[in-house]
Amino acid sequence: MAGNRDPIGEGSTVTLDGAALRLDCGSDLANATIAYRTYGTLNAQRSNAILVCHALTGDQHVLGTHPVTGKPGWWERMVGPGKVIDTDRYFVVCSNVLGGCMGSTGPRDVNPATGKPWGLDFPVITIGDMVRAQARLLDHLGIDQLFCVIGGSMGGMQVLQWAAAYPERVFAAIPVASAARHSAQNIAFHEVGRQAIMADPNWGGGNYLNQNTLPRAGLAVARMAAHITYLSESALHRKFGRNLQNRDKVAFGFDADFQVESYLRYQGESFVERFDPNSYLYITRAMDYFDLAAEHDGVLAHAFRGTRTRFCVVSFTSDWLFPTAENKAVVHALNAAAANVSFVEVATDKGHDAFLLDEPELFKTLGGFLAGCAEHRGLAR
Amino acid sequence: MAGNRDPIGEGSTVTLDGAALRLDCGSDLANATIAYRTYGTLNAQRSNAILVCHALTGDQHVLGTHPVTGKPGWWERMVGPGKVIDTDRYFVVCSNVLGGCMGSTGPRDVNPATGKPWGLDFPVITIGDMVRAQARLLDHLGIDQLFCVIGGSMGGMQVLQWAAAYPERVFAAIPVASAARHSAQNIAFHEVGRQAIMADPNWGGGNYLNQNTLPRAGLAVARMAAHITYLSESALHRKFGRNLQNRDKVAFGFDADFQVESYLRYQGESFVERFDPNSYLYITRAMDYFDLAAEHDGVLAHAFRGTRTRFCVVSFTSDWLFPTAENKAVVHALNAAAANVSFVEVATDKGHDAFLLDEPELFKTLGGFLAGCAEHRGLAR
Repeated sequence: MAGNRDPIGEGSTVTLDGAALRLDCGSDLANATIAYRTYGTLNAQRSNAILVCHALTGDQHVLGTHPVTGKPGWWERMVGPGKVIDTDRYFVVCSNVLGGCMGSTGPRDVNPATGKPWGLDFPVITIGDMVRAQARLLDHLGIDQLFCVIGGSMGGMQVLQWAAAYPERVFAAIPVASAARHSAQNIAFHEVGRQAIMADPNWGGGNYLNQNTLPRAGLAVARMAAHITYLSESALHRKFGRNLQNRDKVAFGFDADFQVESYLRYQGESFVERFDPNSYLYITRAMDYFDLAAEHDGVLAHAFRGTRTRFCVVSFTSDWLFPTAENKAVVHALNAAAANVSFVEVATDKGHDAFLLDEPELFKTLGGFLAGCAEHRGLAR
Repeated sequence: MAGNRDPIGEGSTVTLDGAALRLDCGSDLANATIAYRTYGTLNAQRSNAILVCHALTGDQHVLGTHPVTGKPGWWERMVGPGKVIDTDRYFVVCSNVLGGCMGSTGPRDVNPATGKPWGLDFPVITIGDMVRAQARLLDHLGIDQLFCVIGGSMGGMQVLQWAAAYPERVFAAIPVASAARHSAQNIAFHEVGRQAIMADPNWGGGNYLNQNTLPRAGLAVARMAAHITYLSESALHRKFGRNLQNRDKVAFGFDADFQVESYLRYQGESFVERFDPNSYLYITRAMDYFDLAAEHDGVLAHAFRGTRTRFCVVSFTSDWLFPTAENKAVVHALNAAAANVSFVEVATDKGHDAFLLDEPELFKTLGGFLAGCAEHRGLAR
């Protein structure tokens, strides 16, 4: 595997130039690139690595200024010197998922067979494929076993997949606000987003890069619909209520009278500046397809048979996208597999996005869990 | 006022050709047409009329074959001979709302000032305007006081508006799965739908009728997003789960692999055949603007001061669009106004759409309430 510094993203890339990556769809993907960043220092025993798995629209820029948006990394509250995931203590790795648009191979990249962007010719990938690519990255970094793998939302799906596919490589696993399968309602919301993108004439059958167009409006609508699901009703009420945007009374028109409308429009417009529409299709599809039990005779507990990984499952009371019940189903399966598992439901009104926000109970829970695991793993303070 | 049989809709229309309708936005709307249907017979005392108010995408075709879709009326489970709203006993009136697209004046109609369809030049209307137009229809029909006004969702908003604006004309009022104001989350979902329509190039600034186009894709996406909110997560899980559509395994593509995707696409496509995109903009806006307390010094109870109307407020346990809390807020305000009010939360997993479905507890509740009211009103069996 050939590794390179990526001057734009202030990260590194590795080309998986050994055996082609065998995908769940049956295709082989040769020479895939994985873009990643690391934070902290790998210890001499190579035993202090934590893999952070990002969510649908996240990327490897956990810390530091994002190269596209100029904003802080998406998990600066959780990761950094002296933080819960302490980069003075742990070696943190985060890679852009396969199919993504921040440097890892995805539909925006050039298909070597045609010399043109893949578009919809890119193979449909799965959570399993993402994790397989991450495992190759860890091979490249010389990390046999992760001290911990952690992620929220789709990141949590990757955590569960890691624990199921590579149990010997995962000492501890923390799936946050996640599920072992995507629900009918969640598939439905994803389908709305995809239809919004595909309805935009500028999408052009996924061929927009060759046509010098971009389905901006469709992607913005997809983002707006999804964004509502990341918040709770009470969070929206607390933040916006029926407050008007820069006006004393409603304007009897279709401009953004209400703050919540203005906020949503901004979410849609800013998303278009940083995300590839086809990547959005592929990554939502990967989430829809995720059903860990289905790969194990329909019995989720079988996915974790004989596991020695220590699990900490976290959910949020007001998360209606990945509700506590879905997280508890994971806990029940782990219990049925006699796994070492703790479960915490964090009380918050912030909804699904709580895993990205300032949640002291979340920090305290994960801090305690990691400290206990570090002791068991023999990681000195 | 001039009344006419409407040969297409198998209903009637009335032209409000007296004083122009004064709208909340400040405009006057002259000669508005209201399309309506009646079922049953008005008694000699003109005291047995029930006004049914339809929801966002409903219309006056409560019973019988719908003239556009060919499907049964939207409330055949509730209304008809021997049903809870017994057309052998009551005279049922339902009119298409102002701004609608089933015969009442709306943005699809010709603006007399230009001779072309109104499009976005149509004035933005409110729930109050809809009710004001209905009151004029009742004048035309010679009905001074309604025995009852009933409706679900946006229909329930009209019920509350009726009780507040014309207390002396409403003997009994039944708002079902409704609210006295539209929540931030609901405004957000409506905004997504509007943005989906307006993002469609075939919308053409609302001018599509003059351009012989139709924003089909945008309207379909709007409907898909909205439709998810009408159901509960558990209803979606029960109906569809992760079942595949006509296939044994996922196809690794973007066709409708899952039944829930196929179902949603069908909902979007069939909606386009029967609904006007601009009407969708106007009616969602009317709901967003609804805030009954705001018209009464911010105190909802003041909207019902001195009321003698008998109220029955109904909510559904699994309705997350118009949750029980919003309905209870109405009950609290009615109690604070010392009104005659009963409240029932029906246990169901069917979500917001439960008011349209087979819900025995709903039928039993409303049947009992109506029987009691009929006795008090002196309506003989």
